[in-house]
Amino acid sequence: MTYKQLFENIKKKQSYLCVGLDTDINKIPKHLLNNENPIFEFNKKIIDATQKYTIAYKPNTAFYESMGAQGWENLHLTINYIKNTYPDILVIADAKRGDIGNTSKMYADAFFNKLNSDAVTVAPYMGEDSIKPFLKFKNKWIIVLALTSNKGAFDFQFTKENNEFLFEKVIKKCKSWGDHNNIMYVVGATKAKKLQEIRQIAPNNFLLVPGIGAQGGTIEEVAKFGLNKNCGLIVNSSRGIIYADNTENFAKAAAKNAYILQQKMKTTLQKL
Amino acid sequence: MTYKQLFENIKKKQSYLCVGLDTDINKIPKHLLNNENPIFEFNKKIIDATQKYTIAYKPNTAFYESMGAQGWENLHLTINYIKNTYPDILVIADAKRGDIGNTSKMYADAFFNKLNSDAVTVAPYMGEDSIKPFLKFKNKWIIVLALTSNKGAFDFQFTKENNEFLFEKVIKKCKSWGDHNNIMYVVGATKAKKLQEIRQIAPNNFLLVPGIGAQGGTIEEVAKFGLNKNCGLIVNSSRGIIYADNTENFAKAAAKNAYILQQKMKTTLQKL
Repeated sequence: MTYKQLFENIKKKQSYLCVGLDTDINKIPKHLLNNENPIFEFNKKIIDATQKYTIAYKPNTAFYESMGAQGWENLHLTINYIKNTYPDILVIADAKRGDIGNTSKMYADAFFNKLNSDAVTVAPYMGEDSIKPFLKFKNKWIIVLALTSNKGAFDFQFTKENNEFLFEKVIKKCKSWGDHNNIMYVVGATKAKKLQEIRQIAPNNFLLVPGIGAQGGTIEEVAKFGLNKNCGLIVNSSRGIIYADNTENFAKAAAKNAYILQQKMKTTLQKL
Repeated sequence: MTYKQLFENIKKKQSYLCVGLDTDINKIPKHLLNNENPIFEFNKKIIDATQKYTIAYKPNTAFYESMGAQGWENLHLTINYIKNTYPDILVIADAKRGDIGNTSKMYADAFFNKLNSDAVTVAPYMGEDSIKPFLKFKNKWIIVLALTSNKGAFDFQFTKENNEFLFEKVIKKCKSWGDHNNIMYVVGATKAKKLQEIRQIAPNNFLLVPGIGAQGGTIEEVAKFGLNKNCGLIVNSSRGIIYADNTENFAKAAAKNAYILQQKMKTTLQKL
């Protein structure tokens, strides 16, 4: 998917919502457990119900890996289902990979070729050769961890050298390896005010923003400090949408919560 | 596996060799492709041939993920084969995971409970809550990336704040979350001289040292700067052992190369 295609879809749907598919067998509605494949059944129903309000889905690999080979197969089935049924929607494999060049090449193959995801999240600790192999794929994206939404973000990401934080250094270095057509950054909604400073360094890149809802951030604040002329934001909600209800009504409840967020996003997009 | 059990095995085998199972379908001997499961067949033969000289195996998850659900099944089969056949040998899942607490908990479940590995490599960028969920498992280990063997290590790991490098800060912070009974660190053989400084901060921890062979480090240098009174080193070789030969003789050739490394290690262990 290209930058332009992504922005077109945002304009069409008046949304920059990403739904996080952190699907946990212990949290899905009990009646689904009678299905042959409860996880995939849950995902399909969530996707069908929320796709109107959504421009991206983000399956979190941890939740699938914890189910072994069948989990990996469910990840594959889920991504294929999205790409075959709703090809305009961006699929982000939230994998946070990163290794030496030889290994990152294998990860890029796994996520872009085999799983057919459009984007993969990447941890920057190991530097250039952990990032570059992903950038060789046309119309695919990496989303580099910059300033994350969790408490632990304060441990290392604010390490300061020459008046520059580590997360700023990460963004600046990445700019020499790729551009807004193949790199996005993760910036947590819980650090929304920092978005203003990050926009100085990365004016054109899309930012993937987790941390609204369960983690405490708000759309209004994220939009205020993060929107650029091509929107430039993908805001994720996982638990607040997919676990909105755990009865037979779960998909409708998920759609309702997605709709509420989309409506808020629509308001913030009027200014573009 | 406990610290004591690991050291006992090192003394018994006079080795601190880890064999990296970076198994690539395109690199294994062609005659194995006639087997029903060439990857698992290759791994079993490599393991049986090298186990005498080896105290750890390190499957790299990227190579298995690039084969989809079957790859994940092969990872599971390989770990089970090692733990059932050679229970004294440490199994390290080289996964370099790290995410918010809620997700790291799922990764810990995936690697410790479901896959039954003894240790998992973890990237520190996201800080405390990305690390701690792994430390709740008794007799299991995390191996935190500190100073990696690759060129990209220079991009961020040497970020300097208050006269302290980021990789030093990582080790110091980790010491407040766990100890030498559940945390090891990755320190690349290509930065062997830095081992001396790292031993000042982490005198008792085991260090997982990749980067000898294909990447250029040597055992003598690693031992000189890194050994402690309980050995404290696990030195990995992947390509130099498993791809020593690509004919029907591959397992013997792997054993020979493992033996050569073990003999070098034995010499360095005399001083303990």
